[in-house]
Amino acid sequence: MPDELVLRLSCPDRSGIVARVSSYLAAAGCNILDAQQFEDRLGNRFFMRVVFDPADGSASELREGFAPIAAEYGMDWDLRDRSAPPKVIILVSKFDHCLVDLLYRKRIGEIDMDIVAVISNHPADPDHPLITPGIPFHHLPVTPGTKPEQEAQVRAIIEETGADLVVLARYMQILSDDMARFLSGRCINIHHSFLPGFKGAKPYHQAYERGVKMIGATSHYVTADLDEGPIIAQDVEAISHRDTPEDLVAKGRDVERRVLARAVRMHLEGRVFLNGSRTVVFAS
Amino acid sequence: MPDELVLRLSCPDRSGIVARVSSYLAAAGCNILDAQQFEDRLGNRFFMRVVFDPADGSASELREGFAPIAAEYGMDWDLRDRSAPPKVIILVSKFDHCLVDLLYRKRIGEIDMDIVAVISNHPADPDHPLITPGIPFHHLPVTPGTKPEQEAQVRAIIEETGADLVVLARYMQILSDDMARFLSGRCINIHHSFLPGFKGAKPYHQAYERGVKMIGATSHYVTADLDEGPIIAQDVEAISHRDTPEDLVAKGRDVERRVLARAVRMHLEGRVFLNGSRTVVFAS
Amino acid sequence: MPDELVLRLSCPDRSGIVARVSSYLAAAGCNILDAQQFEDRLGNRFFMRVVFDPADGSASELREGFAPIAAEYGMDWDLRDRSAPPKVIILVSKFDHCLVDLLYRKRIGEIDMDIVAVISNHPADPDHPLITPGIPFHHLPVTPGTKPEQEAQVRAIIEETGADLVVLARYMQILSDDMARFLSGRCINIHHSFLPGFKGAKPYHQAYERGVKMIGATSHYVTADLDEGPIIAQDVEAISHRDTPEDLVAKGRDVERRVLARAVRMHLEGRVFLNGSRTVVFAS
Amino acid sequence: MPDELVLRLSCPDRSGIVARVSSYLAAAGCNILDAQQFEDRLGNRFFMRVVFDPADGSASELREGFAPIAAEYGMDWDLRDRSAPPKVIILVSKFDHCLVDLLYRKRIGEIDMDIVAVISNHPADPDHPLITPGIPFHHLPVTPGTKPEQEAQVRAIIEETGADLVVLARYMQILSDDMARFLSGRCINIHHSFLPGFKGAKPYHQAYERGVKMIGATSHYVTADLDEGPIIAQDVEAISHRDTPEDLVAKGRDVERRVLARAVRMHLEGRVFLNGSRTVVFAS
Repeated sequence: MPDELVLRLSCPDRSGIVARVSSYLAAAGCNILDAQQFEDRLGNRFFMRVVFDPADGSASELREGFAPIAAEYGMDWDLRDRSAPPKVIILVSKFDHCLVDLLYRKRIGEIDMDIVAVISNHPADPDHPLITPGIPFHHLPVTPGTKPEQEAQVRAIIEETGADLVVLARYMQILSDDMARFLSGRCINIHHSFLPGFKGAKPYHQAYERGVKMIGATSHYVTADLDEGPIIAQDVEAISHRDTPEDLVAKGRDVERRVLARAVRMHLEGRVFLNGSRTVVFAS
Repeated sequence: MPDELVLRLSCPDRSGIVARVSSYLAAAGCNILDAQQFEDRLGNRFFMRVVFDPADGSASELREGFAPIAAEYGMDWDLRDRSAPPKVIILVSKFDHCLVDLLYRKRIGEIDMDIVAVISNHPADPDHPLITPGIPFHHLPVTPGTKPEQEAQVRAIIEETGADLVVLARYMQILSDDMARFLSGRCINIHHSFLPGFKGAKPYHQAYERGVKMIGATSHYVTADLDEGPIIAQDVEAISHRDTPEDLVAKGRDVERRVLARAVRMHLEGRVFLNGSRTVVFAS
Repeated sequence: MPDELVLRLSCPDRSGIVARVSSYLAAAGCNILDAQQFEDRLGNRFFMRVVFDPADGSASELREGFAPIAAEYGMDWDLRDRSAPPKVIILVSKFDHCLVDLLYRKRIGEIDMDIVAVISNHPADPDHPLITPGIPFHHLPVTPGTKPEQEAQVRAIIEETGADLVVLARYMQILSDDMARFLSGRCINIHHSFLPGFKGAKPYHQAYERGVKMIGATSHYVTADLDEGPIIAQDVEAISHRDTPEDLVAKGRDVERRVLARAVRMHLEGRVFLNGSRTVVFAS
Repeated sequence: MPDELVLRLSCPDRSGIVARVSSYLAAAGCNILDAQQFEDRLGNRFFMRVVFDPADGSASELREGFAPIAAEYGMDWDLRDRSAPPKVIILVSKFDHCLVDLLYRKRIGEIDMDIVAVISNHPADPDHPLITPGIPFHHLPVTPGTKPEQEAQVRAIIEETGADLVVLARYMQILSDDMARFLSGRCINIHHSFLPGFKGAKPYHQAYERGVKMIGATSHYVTADLDEGPIIAQDVEAISHRDTPEDLVAKGRDVERRVLARAVRMHLEGRVFLNGSRTVVFAS
């Protein structure tokens, strides 16, 4: 019997949803451990996340019982079992600070996930075997001419492993539209600027040229529109006229890794909902 | 008929509370506009705040109908009508930056309140008539010998006006234990340090002496234990070795006024709950 | 005899500048109270700000003595006497939170300035006479057809008062190219977004649509290129999916007023230098 | 010939110091690349850090030439050659997030240092060989009875390696007074609270009990007075009523590692000066 289940749902807002959902769970003997909901009055949409102890019920029984309610309210929904950690693939290029950070947070249990592959378009550094033993590393180089083949290889790994989430941890390749569509809603990128400022390449150099007084990082879902996907987390850090573009790169690393780690954790815990081109993120 | 009512409750945690509350409101034809709840697993206590449109129901009818449920669960609760702004008294001494800030936020509608009195132990500045016409100003000087009498005068004004909240907006007088008890749960102070650091007098000078690299401000409920009351809001600002104690005082003003304004607004909107010596503050 | 003078200079970087400047001041009997300099290695330019006690020397004597050194090094420079506060004009439209904030900071001495005029394209609010008595208020309405005339009126006030700085404190009119050129280097604007994101109109609504997780404000010198002038100060504040565009407007007010106040103070203290399209801002 | 030298000095404040120092360097043909100074008017003390290109001069010649000036002004001073990275020893207990972070920053060149030893009172984790090959690891367990012997072993390693700095990277042992004195001015600790709040053991649990709304971390020089040493860097992070003590521990890790890394880097670059019980930290 699982210890905790997570029910996630969104639907057009109308009266009585909380009562209906919570009464169903109460009648099934479940004990709500945490619940958060949000009524988007402007968009007229309702979002809810409930963590509960299912007592004697199984996830499949509860899913079956809840389906008619979900149908009645027109819900997008799922019911997750938290006992098995989600499967994650991390894609990376040359800069590995976000990768190293995610591996460490997994190791100490801060992010509960099963990293089923690390894929890089650069070879592993033999002097710094930072990949925990047991995590498969795939070196899949890419050139403009071989991009379709390389993406097919990445896709094959995703399908074989059954990955729930793909993380672009400073993966400096632009995904094809096909690949972006294939990964829709389950691929998180970290962009090294405070979007929508400084889209595209070399954002720290752009920031230096513009003379901003803070730099930032943005974690978002990947869509076919580059740097336009729904934003999950952002943060900034103050800089000064003394900082060169290289200083910005260094200061930015700290922001990038904490913003990406936060987005990955929130997504894996089922706290993030898509709301059109925006997100609802329930606090942890 | 009021547009919005706010139900606030806390009780020992047990299963089925959300279902019971939301089903009651649904059955009464009320439409939930916003709901937040928190299960304190360590303290085994449940907190909930529900904003709803009562449809045809009146606040008094809904209170009557809800009372048996509240009794059954052992709830601390109230049901507030948001149509009348709460009554607030502001106490101030010489430094008026928090007072001016609160008056401005009230004027532009950012904080919905009815300021029924401003009380100061210093006379008003005739050159800076910042008090909006219509707000009574009381000059009640105090000396160590006249403290009981002055507190009695303050208390009389509180009772006559029926004030819901008393704000110590840099009121540099320590309340007597009796007065603190009288105001329990309805008096908010701003302390000009990041508590529990630098309790007591001249916290910016203490901060300078200790050589900290950030200063802060803390807004808390007043209790008989000076600077020990439950904290509602805190914030900080970076400083450097260049800052003198006077610079800290100047930089601190910005932090103080936004921390106090935040605490006052959150309290008046019914978002703050006492949880032993801590608070639960539902996000706005 | 003035208490403190401020020497500000920038020039192509070469060896020996600090020695030359500091030796000149030492030989003239001046005592350096604060000095900051910055070598822009990428741009090969040197910046320096020195606050000193002139002892027996007068500002004009010291200027005369320093001129040959400045010529030798090709310096942009000035020598300011801090005993007379600089003259400032504030332009404002309907939203007055930045105006009220600047007036308050002037009143308590936090920003040392002489506000010689407040100009608004809206009439003053008779119920909220926030303008300190003695500060002239000019109501200069503007329509698309009367813009040249209105700008001529504003310009006349600037010239008559001899204003050192013009502050656009949420002045919701776009200056003509001529006016922007006329005010080059002595006009500071507050834009209610974290530039370069959300240029142009209704930035908080743009921010809501994009779904960012932080909002910001940017204070910059006005140039003919709208929202492209050199940035002096920026700051941000976290928001959530719960915030409507109106909530962003409210949260943004706090950021705007502290960012504008910071930029104005830094400029008036002679801490800001133009460095191409960027600024050097020496810490206070 | 070294590329860059760093001159650091502090002395009683008097007129002409900047002129004297910069003229000496100019006469010796040195080119100043960066200079910062600070006049502590309250403490009447002057601090200066100059980075310069020595041209044809050697560090020893320049030291010899500068010594008479230093003597005349009563300076505490040194002249450092940046070509050799400083030697650092890291002490750690069970929690290794700060250690892992420092090792990574060293690996990618963000902190220029030679880690000559890692010492732990716990054995290394065989499954996570995070120590870069080539860095000696010493397991020196300690019990109340063996503390003097263990400290002697630590001291022997410090002396044998000639370490310039000892970093307590969450080393959960209190140093003896003797050891603290031995390491005076060259030992940096990270305390997991915003000092002076929550000194001593289990600060996150103390923070939970007090109900603060932000947690922090403080990096400071070690002195015989526990948690009272001069502060180098601090930072904070917002928390909420939802956070358990364990959540605070997790959120605190991010703050701890960036605050410690910042303090270590600033110290190693010669940017930190002791000023009584406070520090002067020149910006990078």
